[in-house]
Amino acid sequence: MDLWWTETQTPSLRLGLRCSAVVTRARSAYQEVAVLETEQYGRLLALDGAVMTTEADEFVYHEMLVHPAMVACARPRSVLVVGGGDGGAVREVLRHPAVERVVLAELDPLVVDVSRAHLPGIAGRIGDPRVAVCPGDGALFLRGAPDAAFDVVLVDAPDPVGPAEVLFSGGLFAEAARVLAPGGVLVLQTESPFLHAGLIRTVQERLAASFPLVRLYWAVVPTYPGAMWTFSLASRGADPLAPGAPERGGALPTRYWSPEVHRAAFVLPPFVRALLSERGHAAAEPGGARP
Amino acid sequence: MDLWWTETQTPSLRLGLRCSAVVTRARSAYQEVAVLETEQYGRLLALDGAVMTTEADEFVYHEMLVHPAMVACARPRSVLVVGGGDGGAVREVLRHPAVERVVLAELDPLVVDVSRAHLPGIAGRIGDPRVAVCPGDGALFLRGAPDAAFDVVLVDAPDPVGPAEVLFSGGLFAEAARVLAPGGVLVLQTESPFLHAGLIRTVQERLAASFPLVRLYWAVVPTYPGAMWTFSLASRGADPLAPGAPERGGALPTRYWSPEVHRAAFVLPPFVRALLSERGHAAAEPGGARP
Repeated sequence: MDLWWTETQTPSLRLGLRCSAVVTRARSAYQEVAVLETEQYGRLLALDGAVMTTEADEFVYHEMLVHPAMVACARPRSVLVVGGGDGGAVREVLRHPAVERVVLAELDPLVVDVSRAHLPGIAGRIGDPRVAVCPGDGALFLRGAPDAAFDVVLVDAPDPVGPAEVLFSGGLFAEAARVLAPGGVLVLQTESPFLHAGLIRTVQERLAASFPLVRLYWAVVPTYPGAMWTFSLASRGADPLAPGAPERGGALPTRYWSPEVHRAAFVLPPFVRALLSERGHAAAEPGGARP
Repeated sequence: MDLWWTETQTPSLRLGLRCSAVVTRARSAYQEVAVLETEQYGRLLALDGAVMTTEADEFVYHEMLVHPAMVACARPRSVLVVGGGDGGAVREVLRHPAVERVVLAELDPLVVDVSRAHLPGIAGRIGDPRVAVCPGDGALFLRGAPDAAFDVVLVDAPDPVGPAEVLFSGGLFAEAARVLAPGGVLVLQTESPFLHAGLIRTVQERLAASFPLVRLYWAVVPTYPGAMWTFSLASRGADPLAPGAPERGGALPTRYWSPEVHRAAFVLPPFVRALLSERGHAAAEPGGARP
């Protein structure tokens, strides 16, 4: 059987993966949640037909979403993950021995259930006693959270369309600043400079309205559109590039992140630096935004 | 019209690009040479259905193939490009003021002709008086070249299958070592650690048989299979990481390479370091080699 799963990553760009099986496929109130067995990249979690994560490259995304913030924070005890229902971010957070509490504020409980059932290597730590799963709207959760409740907030959101759009808004960043303890750090994924230069620039500008320190870093995630994937980090002063910060994670059992990779990830190619400084620049987005 | 071009990157992985036009399509003695107008990444050069380069991300590949070797070499006057018929490597080589002579040893003259006609932004410097186009087999050219004739040899080859396979052989590396002047540097592209771990390891081992200094570095090229793209560099001692080496290129008008990106590109994630040291390791290649 020649079975192919295809993601239309933008109106002009597709990723195709040959599959040996559809492991599960179900519809929640929010979206279609599917797990496929791909030959190239192992099991794949897809939400509404878009790759959320694959077994072969999830380690890059999850390590790079989590560890830069965790080592920037001197003692990360309390962590909020907004989105992230596959559990990969939670797994990486729990590698840090200071962690006492992780709140997983995922909109769709079906994502958590499917991931725990079919992606144990990614979701296997959601059952840790330090983890509280709080199904629901991440933006609402943030609004209801007390001041200074978290040391690290990680926004592990899908593309900024539909219900996830609010997670990239200035209002959300102001709430994140409020719920972060002094010395706390916010990180969110901000897509690819090859496809979404405007989003990266907008998020960086919005973060600067609520945080004095804003940085951009990147990693390569082969199954994500554009593959060069950026993360935006913001804090009231805690700096991932402070002397000694990355070395706090020197003993982590990582496959992509390391203290040296950490520093290298903040080195931006000139074309990325240029897109951050240009206003109204749209040349890097000929194919438009994701559908 | 909903027109899609698809590359089967491995037997289990596909890239699809929406096209507005087929600019040209012709068959040489060696392969089908096509240029398509894609909506996402601009014009695309395809050889036998595989992406060679696109206007949107060629700068990453060509800058990163060329500049690390050129700055590692104290005074690169004479440069050999094996393959590279699209002219992108030649363009970057000519940005270095010391260059007096560039030999472009491309197997297929049609690639050069089509690129000059339809990809002027990439191929536009092939007509420079310092450039000699020598159509023919790159391995044969190397064998006939005098000792110590070149300061830099760049192997800008397609995947190591069919006629290009010889360009990744130990015999070729020994010839390259012979034709390099003292202080000279060899670089070749060595595919993605997500898909071709075995090739990277094999090439690094073969290079070590002819060169005392061998290094691996990487960049992100969204349209290449696996997107995380490696380059193997070898020399008799000239070191791209020597103090002051990257700064030799500080004035280059680049979009991806910079002295800081140069240093960061040699920082390898732990999973890449691991694949270099493991023998017989094949876990990173579930989908097999490219067809």
